[in-house]
Amino acid sequence: MNSIITSILLQLSVVLAKNIISGGNGSGSSGGNNNLNPIDEPIDDSPDINLPDDNNLEDISPIADEIFSSWALFIVLFLLCSALWSSYYLQQKRIKAIHETVLSIFYGMVIGLIIRISPGHYIQDAVKFNSSYFFNILLPPIILNSGYELNQANFFRNIGTILTFAIPGTFISSIVVGIILFIYTKLGIESIHISFVDALAVGATLSATDPVTILSIFNSYKVDPKLYTIIFGESLLNDAICIVMFETCQKFHGKNVEISSFFEGISLFLLTFTISTIIGLIIGILIALVLKHSNIRRYPQIETCLVLLFAYESYFFSNGCHMSGIVSLLFCGITMKHYAYYNMSRRTQIATKYIFQLLAQLSENFIFIYLGLSLFTEVELVFKPLLIIITFICICIARWAAIFPLSRFINWFSRYKRQNNLNNSVSIIQDEIPYNYQMMQFWAGLRGAVGVALAMGLQGESKSALLATVLIVVVLTVILFGGTTAGMLEMLNIKTGCIDDNTSDDEFDIEIPKINKNRNTINNVTNGNNKYFDVETSSNNNSINGSANNLIDDNIELTTNDGTNLGIDDHSKWFTNFDENVLKPVLLDSLQE
Amino acid sequence: MNSIITSILLQLSVVLAKNIISGGNGSGSSGGNNNLNPIDEPIDDSPDINLPDDNNLEDISPIADEIFSSWALFIVLFLLCSALWSSYYLQQKRIKAIHETVLSIFYGMVIGLIIRISPGHYIQDAVKFNSSYFFNILLPPIILNSGYELNQANFFRNIGTILTFAIPGTFISSIVVGIILFIYTKLGIESIHISFVDALAVGATLSATDPVTILSIFNSYKVDPKLYTIIFGESLLNDAICIVMFETCQKFHGKNVEISSFFEGISLFLLTFTISTIIGLIIGILIALVLKHSNIRRYPQIETCLVLLFAYESYFFSNGCHMSGIVSLLFCGITMKHYAYYNMSRRTQIATKYIFQLLAQLSENFIFIYLGLSLFTEVELVFKPLLIIITFICICIARWAAIFPLSRFINWFSRYKRQNNLNNSVSIIQDEIPYNYQMMQFWAGLRGAVGVALAMGLQGESKSALLATVLIVVVLTVILFGGTTAGMLEMLNIKTGCIDDNTSDDEFDIEIPKINKNRNTINNVTNGNNKYFDVETSSNNNSINGSANNLIDDNIELTTNDGTNLGIDDHSKWFTNFDENVLKPVLLDSLQE
Repeated sequence: MNSIITSILLQLSVVLAKNIISGGNGSGSSGGNNNLNPIDEPIDDSPDINLPDDNNLEDISPIADEIFSSWALFIVLFLLCSALWSSYYLQQKRIKAIHETVLSIFYGMVIGLIIRISPGHYIQDAVKFNSSYFFNILLPPIILNSGYELNQANFFRNIGTILTFAIPGTFISSIVVGIILFIYTKLGIESIHISFVDALAVGATLSATDPVTILSIFNSYKVDPKLYTIIFGESLLNDAICIVMFETCQKFHGKNVEISSFFEGISLFLLTFTISTIIGLIIGILIALVLKHSNIRRYPQIETCLVLLFAYESYFFSNGCHMSGIVSLLFCGITMKHYAYYNMSRRTQIATKYIFQLLAQLSENFIFIYLGLSLFTEVELVFKPLLIIITFICICIARWAAIFPLSRFINWFSRYKRQNNLNNSVSIIQDEIPYNYQMMQFWAGLRGAVGVALAMGLQGESKSALLATVLIVVVLTVILFGGTTAGMLEMLNIKTGCIDDNTSDDEFDIEIPKINKNRNTINNVTNGNNKYFDVETSSNNNSINGSANNLIDDNIELTTNDGTNLGIDDHSKWFTNFDENVLKPVLLDSLQE
Repeated sequence: MNSIITSILLQLSVVLAKNIISGGNGSGSSGGNNNLNPIDEPIDDSPDINLPDDNNLEDISPIADEIFSSWALFIVLFLLCSALWSSYYLQQKRIKAIHETVLSIFYGMVIGLIIRISPGHYIQDAVKFNSSYFFNILLPPIILNSGYELNQANFFRNIGTILTFAIPGTFISSIVVGIILFIYTKLGIESIHISFVDALAVGATLSATDPVTILSIFNSYKVDPKLYTIIFGESLLNDAICIVMFETCQKFHGKNVEISSFFEGISLFLLTFTISTIIGLIIGILIALVLKHSNIRRYPQIETCLVLLFAYESYFFSNGCHMSGIVSLLFCGITMKHYAYYNMSRRTQIATKYIFQLLAQLSENFIFIYLGLSLFTEVELVFKPLLIIITFICICIARWAAIFPLSRFINWFSRYKRQNNLNNSVSIIQDEIPYNYQMMQFWAGLRGAVGVALAMGLQGESKSALLATVLIVVVLTVILFGGTTAGMLEMLNIKTGCIDDNTSDDEFDIEIPKINKNRNTINNVTNGNNKYFDVETSSNNNSINGSANNLIDDNIELTTNDGTNLGIDDHSKWFTNFDENVLKPVLLDSLQE
């Protein structure tokens, strides 16, 4: 069946490509008819130019330009459809060997190859990987949806572990990759010369683990929430940290590096991280307050738009201030879900959920297609096989060096705490990371589109070789690690099939503002609904009751996840009290009356 | 209150603009540190350049570029927020004198002015009106949502009237504008020389009436459905027709025009229109069949994405084939709502509705902000006051010449039909257009962004003068006609406050697939729901029952709209039968069992 899809795709693409070329010539000649405009040159005589030439592109009349962009968009959307359809097919047939992201990359590569070998460079230019599009259009929905869908209780319970892996882990990884690459290039085997700061920048690029693929796999297997949360949290914060590290390295590009630069870099990084978090929190709280103190919920269409726009504002504002938009958006999403969500009209609650999910899903698929495409459509790439192999080995070593020592440190620390503080032993055992989780975490370190987008910003004479290396390594990790994750989960005996209340995406998973008054009635009504409305999902009753409880006793719900009583950590207790007694009454509408 | 908003906006913008400039210099200097890249020039020494210089832009490092685009996007989103917030405020305070689109344009103009007078041209380049963005990103959601939300019964009942105004009406309007403009430029008062074909192209540009503003006004007043449908249908098809006419004119640009060209143009036009419609219908039916014959509704997240993507494919495919994407997308939306909608999972039904609405609303507001912005940020404009005045008078004459004679023709034709066919008299009286409706239709002829986007494609030496003229005239019509529509509705004694079943956008407006089995039960359950769930909308019961009926007796529902029995026209009878007996059983899932 996959081969059928592929062959249909191939045939269609050839037809498309032919159409494009004839369309291109047709429009070119209509442009050539324009005798009055002196700078307008006929472009249909040179269909075999393969070099990018932006000036030519601008001379095409807007209508011809529109035709080209229509075809480019048609192809991209067609690829998206194919990827989504394959994903549906894989899910329905329960095929575990191939993952949809691998297919997305593959489809992208096929079409990229066709575009590359076909004459004309219009489409090739139109579908090039553009880091600005990536950061401004594709990335925000994914991050926002991650923050919005996050299981907050799990995330904050494991925040220590997550931050340990995210911050020192990424540092270790970048430095290991940087040092190995720097030594390798100094050996002079290949004609690449990079400074140590540039090598570190590449290291940062290649330390951004991908939150998309691994999580979609974990989601479909319903992996143990703790492992899920750690890997999810790490990969999300990871991206932000790599971006900040990369930008810090770029600032030192071409300068002499001293020991003080190291501390300068670290303090710059910590400052960025803190301010970005604060921006996100403030905007999230702002949304909650605006929704509480206005009557905008009477106009749910406007409300939905405003919520979406406000969230995006946090991203762009933060980026514009040289801060990390990802961090801001993530914390804005979390704050929104924790407070603002309960002040929205129900229509907006449903709409935001669906819209964020849709945008995230489209972006995720698109990013991988884009990666596949750019393997062939990027013109500047210089492939050096040996460098690619060395770099691939590099990142495996770096990941190893980051995960295992840090896990050992976390386990040691939790044991140390247990010895000093025997009362709370149950909660502290929870902090330990068993070996199979460590191994899985190592395996989950596949790199994603953030790395490629960052690599676009590399400077210096070796840019094309380094960019090609990063691109290939990213695709390799996705195919190798992503493709074998399912098998690895089985091999390592990791618990799958856990039901996670918060990820239920049924349409009746609606939190109702006035819950504390008539909870029983609502449960009855929703149960009544299911009889008539729900045909397909069977765990519906559970999820509604779960999320209804979730609202009221957000922190007592700890028992439901995997059947064991986890207890409440000390560090989260004070926040829970503060949240319940101060923040929620101020920010939430529903608890007022 | 408006002045407060405006002043806050102004102050914020100044702060923003300052930030942008300092950010620009900072990033420029970090780019300037790059000594290895020979083409990278320091750009912070020339902050006072106002001319666009694309080469400079490309030399900025991707990170600096990202900062600029972040600020540009931040400003745009901020404007969107302001526009939406104003819209909420106007609606809440029931202020009728100012309409939100006028405010959107005004906000855009204010920010555009600030961007224009502030040094540096990065933001100015980033926020320029780009016709490709307009046609590929902003327009499709509006058209798709229009097709999806269309009251089909009303639309097809008035299809004759709509087509009369849309096709011959637009022809008359374009030719009148073209002839007057051509004569005026031949007089030599201003140094503009355009050929007759170019004048016709400008005429086509200025005949595209805007479906956005007028409909949002009509929607908020709940104007009589018949008038609403006629103006809505006209303005939608109008756009498509103007685009096709404009492109036809552009093909003759610089050529000698003969009488045969006229017929060639008309046949080209009719061919385009027919093929585009067929493309839209086929893709709509395809979606229905795919949804019916697959199990994809078990994966509603994928389903929603696919439905959206398929609909967009119709647009881009049609555009790529040199057909009219607008027409295809419109008919694809209509077909989807008529068939595919009932094959979707409920989650997808709700999600598509909300997502289309959100995207349309954002696009609509954005387009007007964009228009306002481009008054100041477009660099190529040459303003000729006399030409602008003449053109404005021109389009009023042209609109007059199109509406009144055609209305007289329609009235004569309906009277003629009545005399020959006395049985069906009730339905035919319905076809007549009273004088106040004609006047309102004249008044509703304000021009929109489609015209501006088309004018971007004008060729020849007078392009900048013509573009400026079109831009100003469009903004003038929106402010003058759009701002006075509410008053005009009162003056002309046009019935407002009509409840239209189909435009109800409550979250419980969900059509349930298996309706014919347990309709009563469902009505009971949904009524039960309202007691607990619904606080704000009072007409909820009506709308649910209305739409439940709507599914089963789509054509008998004619009685509900304005209380009078309209009867069923002959020409729609055969289609109703065909639809009920052939199409629905083949395409719909729910009627099978």
